[in-house]
Amino acid sequence: GQSPASYVLRFSCPNQVGIVAAVTSTLVQLGCDITDGQQFDDRLTGTFFGRIEFDALRADLGQQGFFDGMTPVLASFGATWGVRAVGHLGRVLIMASQFDHCLVDLLYRWRIGELPMHVAAVVANHPRETYRAADLADVPFYHLPVSPETKDDQEAEILRLIEELDVDLVVLARYMQILSPDLVERLRGRCINIHHSFLPGFKGAKPYHQAYERGVKLIGATAHYVTAELDEGPIIAQDVERVTHRHRPEDLVRTGRDIERRVLAQAVRAHLEDRVMLRGGTTVVFSS
Amino acid sequence: GQSPASYVLRFSCPNQVGIVAAVTSTLVQLGCDITDGQQFDDRLTGTFFGRIEFDALRADLGQQGFFDGMTPVLASFGATWGVRAVGHLGRVLIMASQFDHCLVDLLYRWRIGELPMHVAAVVANHPRETYRAADLADVPFYHLPVSPETKDDQEAEILRLIEELDVDLVVLARYMQILSPDLVERLRGRCINIHHSFLPGFKGAKPYHQAYERGVKLIGATAHYVTAELDEGPIIAQDVERVTHRHRPEDLVRTGRDIERRVLAQAVRAHLEDRVMLRGGTTVVFSS
Amino acid sequence: GQSPASYVLRFSCPNQVGIVAAVTSTLVQLGCDITDGQQFDDRLTGTFFGRIEFDALRADLGQQGFFDGMTPVLASFGATWGVRAVGHLGRVLIMASQFDHCLVDLLYRWRIGELPMHVAAVVANHPRETYRAADLADVPFYHLPVSPETKDDQEAEILRLIEELDVDLVVLARYMQILSPDLVERLRGRCINIHHSFLPGFKGAKPYHQAYERGVKLIGATAHYVTAELDEGPIIAQDVERVTHRHRPEDLVRTGRDIERRVLAQAVRAHLEDRVMLRGGTTVVFSS
Amino acid sequence: GQSPASYVLRFSCPNQVGIVAAVTSTLVQLGCDITDGQQFDDRLTGTFFGRIEFDALRADLGQQGFFDGMTPVLASFGATWGVRAVGHLGRVLIMASQFDHCLVDLLYRWRIGELPMHVAAVVANHPRETYRAADLADVPFYHLPVSPETKDDQEAEILRLIEELDVDLVVLARYMQILSPDLVERLRGRCINIHHSFLPGFKGAKPYHQAYERGVKLIGATAHYVTAELDEGPIIAQDVERVTHRHRPEDLVRTGRDIERRVLAQAVRAHLEDRVMLRGGTTVVFSS
Repeated sequence: GQSPASYVLRFSCPNQVGIVAAVTSTLVQLGCDITDGQQFDDRLTGTFFGRIEFDALRADLGQQGFFDGMTPVLASFGATWGVRAVGHLGRVLIMASQFDHCLVDLLYRWRIGELPMHVAAVVANHPRETYRAADLADVPFYHLPVSPETKDDQEAEILRLIEELDVDLVVLARYMQILSPDLVERLRGRCINIHHSFLPGFKGAKPYHQAYERGVKLIGATAHYVTAELDEGPIIAQDVERVTHRHRPEDLVRTGRDIERRVLAQAVRAHLEDRVMLRGGTTVVFSS
Repeated sequence: GQSPASYVLRFSCPNQVGIVAAVTSTLVQLGCDITDGQQFDDRLTGTFFGRIEFDALRADLGQQGFFDGMTPVLASFGATWGVRAVGHLGRVLIMASQFDHCLVDLLYRWRIGELPMHVAAVVANHPRETYRAADLADVPFYHLPVSPETKDDQEAEILRLIEELDVDLVVLARYMQILSPDLVERLRGRCINIHHSFLPGFKGAKPYHQAYERGVKLIGATAHYVTAELDEGPIIAQDVERVTHRHRPEDLVRTGRDIERRVLAQAVRAHLEDRVMLRGGTTVVFSS
Repeated sequence: GQSPASYVLRFSCPNQVGIVAAVTSTLVQLGCDITDGQQFDDRLTGTFFGRIEFDALRADLGQQGFFDGMTPVLASFGATWGVRAVGHLGRVLIMASQFDHCLVDLLYRWRIGELPMHVAAVVANHPRETYRAADLADVPFYHLPVSPETKDDQEAEILRLIEELDVDLVVLARYMQILSPDLVERLRGRCINIHHSFLPGFKGAKPYHQAYERGVKLIGATAHYVTAELDEGPIIAQDVERVTHRHRPEDLVRTGRDIERRVLAQAVRAHLEDRVMLRGGTTVVFSS
Repeated sequence: GQSPASYVLRFSCPNQVGIVAAVTSTLVQLGCDITDGQQFDDRLTGTFFGRIEFDALRADLGQQGFFDGMTPVLASFGATWGVRAVGHLGRVLIMASQFDHCLVDLLYRWRIGELPMHVAAVVANHPRETYRAADLADVPFYHLPVSPETKDDQEAEILRLIEELDVDLVVLARYMQILSPDLVERLRGRCINIHHSFLPGFKGAKPYHQAYERGVKLIGATAHYVTAELDEGPIIAQDVERVTHRHRPEDLVRTGRDIERRVLAQAVRAHLEDRVMLRGGTTVVFSS
C-alpha cells in the first residue's frame, strides 16, 4: 500500500468550549488520524489557536469531501482556518536590494529542498548582474528600480506580479525600500522582513557604527511580519551572538549577516509550515 | 465569581484513530474548557502522547465525577494516564553528597515558589553540618551514610522514606553514590540525575581534568531519568557553555556548577509540570 | 620550593609606541615571568589598554621594590594603572531590596570560594528578616530604609560605610532605588548594577507585562557600571534566553531571575579579576 | 599620508622569562606600534604562545629589515614563529564530496570578501556538475575520483596540487574520504575538517538516525585539524543547537548543515587570522 497523504489544519477563533472536540471528532468521521497537535488559548486576546497534523486514511476522501465535512464545524465557531498538504510548496516572491546574503541563502536552501517553497520570482531594485552569486538560473527575475516618482508604479507592478504568480508569501531579503502603507496592508500576515537588533536597542542611521561606539556585547536579528510601523511588526524569530570590544563595525556587519540569514530562513520555514499565527501585534509560533 | 480550577491531563497509548476526539469530547461533556494542548504520534515506538490543560467550569464536577467520566474512555484505548491540578505540589525527596550547589539551588527555588513542589525530605550521605549554606530549616533531614556493607540497609531506609513520605519524585542533586539496580527499577521514571557532559564526550575518572587536557571548547550538563546504565538514561534537559584555553580544571568545574544547577532545575520543573513522558530509552518533552 | 606569587597588572594610557616593551622589560628587570597577557589599542578613543598576569620569581622583591621599579615607567606614559595579587579578595558591599535572588546567589558563590571577594557588608532598604534565604551569618547587615526625605542621610551613611569598610566594589543586587548623581559620581567605575533587557527594547513600568503583551521571543539581562543615565552605563556582561507565547508575565519574571543572577555574577567576577576597563561610555572586557 | 601597513606576528616557544619583552622591544626598535596583543603560558605543555598585531610606522622598513631584526631574537628563545600582513590572503584548497553546503558557503563568503583567503582550487571526488549551486566560475576545479586502487595516485595528485598552487590551508568541506596517514602527516596543522557532534556522543554509522533513536536534545558540529585519529584532532571551533522529539532524522540533518557551515567558516577564519596555535593534541584559539 501507499503511505497516506498528510495534512496540516490550522484554525483560530474566539475561545469557546468544544472547539477541539468538534474539530477532532470531525477528523475521525472523515477517517483522519492525528499525528501532531498543538493548541493554545491566548488569554490576552481571548483567542484560541490550533494546529493539527493528520494522515488522511480514506482513499476516497477528496478535497471536496474534507471541506464539506469540516467547513460547517469551523464556521459554527467563527473560526479562521486553512488546510494544506504536508509538503505543499508555498509560492514565494523574494525581494532584494544591494546585499544578497539572504537572497543567496534562501535560493540555496530551496535548491536543496530544505524549505517547502517554490520561488515564483525575485524582484530587485538593482539589476540582475548585482546578484552574480545567486543561483537565479530558471527563476523569473524582475528589475524594478524605485524612486520617489516611480514608487506608486513600482508597487502596482509588484502587486500585479503577486496576483499573476499566485504568490503566498513575500520575503524581504534585506530589501532596503520602505513599502507604502497600502501595500503593507494588502500583504498583512504574508510579508516577512529581517532586520538587525541590538541589546540595548537604539534608533537611527548607521546602526553598526552606533553599536560599535556603544560597545554593544550582543548583536542579533529579528524576522517579523511587515506592518505600517517600521521594524515593529509581529516577531516570528530572533537570535543573537556575542561580540567583543575587538569587533569593528565591519566585523559587526559580518556577524549580523550570519544571524540575519539563519533567522530569516527560520521564520520563512515556520510560516510555510503553518506554525505561525497572528495574535494582535504579536504571534503564536508553534514548536517544531 | 471564582476563577475555575485548572488541571493537566496526560496520556499515552498505542496509536489509534480517535483518541484525541474521544478525550476532548469527554472533556466537553464534563464541562471542561481546553486552554493548552500538545499531542505527538511517535512513529519510532508507535506510541501516541498527549497533554491537555483545561479549566473545570462546572462547580459540581468532583474528582469522582471526572474519573467516572474519563476512566472508561482512556481505558478503551489502553492508555496510561494521569491528571493533577495545576499548582499541585509534587512531593520531592532530594539526595545530596559532598557538593551542595544543586541542593541549595533547588531549596531556594522552592522557597520562593518557583517550582511546583514540596520538599518532603533531604537525604544525604554526609552529615547535616555539611550543608550550612542550604536553607534546611523545617525540612526533614536524614543522614544516611553508605558503605559496601551498609548499602542494602541504606537503600531499604530510602525506600521506606519514599513510601512513608508519599514521595512523587526523587532528585539526585549531585548524589555521588550509584543506586542498586533494584532501587533504580523501583524508581523508574521518577528519579532524576544530573551529570556533566563534554563535547566530544569521554569516559573515566577526573572528567574536568580530562576536559582540560583535551582542550574541550564546550562543557555542559545533562539531566536524565536514572536507569541501570549509568548516566545513559532518558534525557530531559541539556545545556552547554563555551570555555577557552584559559580555563583551568577549577574554572571548568565552576562553569559546570552553573550549568548543572540550571539544567537540573529545568528538568525538575518539566517533570513536575507533567511535560515529560517516557518513550523507550528517550523522552517526549512538551514545550513550555 | 614554594610556588611563586602571581599578580595582575593593568594599565591604560593614550596610545604611544613602546608602552608594552617598556612595561614588559621592567617586569624582566624585576624578575617577573609573564603567564598571560592581553592588550588592545582602541582607535575609537585613542587609548591603549593592557592586562598582564605574571609570577614574581625573586623572593626579595617586595611591594616597595615593585612600585619603585614600575611607577616611573608607567608614569612616563601617563598611564592609569594598578596591580594586585592573584587571589586577592576585593572588598564588596552588596545592596539589596525586596527581591533577594541575586543577593542569595552572590553570597553562595562567595561562601564556596567561587568569587575572589570578601563581602564587607550587606546594605538593604528592607529589614534583615526579608532575607531569610540568604546566608548572612557573619556578614555585617545594615538596614537603611530610604524615603524622599531621608535619601540624603541614607546615602551619606552608605558612603560612610564604603569608606569605613574600605570597600572596593558596590554591587546593586536588584537594589530598586535610584542613586543620586553625586553618589553615582563618587562610585564611578566601581558600582555594578543588573537590569532586565528585552529584544526589542522598550521603556516604562511593568516591563515583564509589556514584554508579554508584545510577544517578545528573547529576554535577557545586562550588568553595567552605574552612571547618571539610568540603566545606560558601560556594559560588562549580557545574556538572553528564548521564551515562547506560553510564557505568562510570571514565567518571564522567573526566566529573568535566572539570567540576572548569572550575568551579575559574571560581571562581578570580571571586575574582580581586573578584566574590565572603562573606555568612554563603554568597556574593554578581556577574555577569561 | 598613507595609513601604515599592519601585520600579525605569532610565536610559540618553551616558556622562558623575557620573551615578551624581547619581542616587543625589538618591535619598538623597528618602528612598530602594537595594536593588539594576546599571550598565554600553557602550564600543561610548558609552552608560551604569543600573537601581536602591529602597525609598521617606518616607511623604509622592508621585509628584509623586519626579518633581520626579529629573527635572531626569536631564534634565541627557540621559537617557532611567523609574520604576515593583515589582509594577506591565505591560499586555500577546498575538498568536497556529495554534499555541497559547506563548499557553497565558503565560496560565497570568499566572493563577498568576508574571509581573508584566495580559493586556489576545488578538489572533489564527484564531477563538476554535482556542484551546480556553487559559484565555481573562475576557480580551478579538479575532479579526482577515488577508489581503494587509485587512492595512492589520487593523494599524490592532491599533494602535487598543494605544492604547485602554493596552498596554505586545505579545508575538508564535508569531504567524505579518509586521508591516508601519510597525507595527514604532511598536512599537519594546515588541514581543517568539519564533522557532526552529539551530546551525548556515540560512534558508528548513520549518526543522525542514531541521534533520532536516542532522543538527543542538542546536536552540533566540530571543526578540527585533521590527525591520524579520525575526528579526534585538535578542536578549533564548536557549536550546538537544540532539537526536540519532533525532529526526525532529516530535520536533524538539516539542522546539522546549518551548524556545520557556520562552525567551519569560524574555524577557517580563526586559522587564516593566525589566531589558532597547536598545543599538543589541542589548541590555543586567541579571541577575536
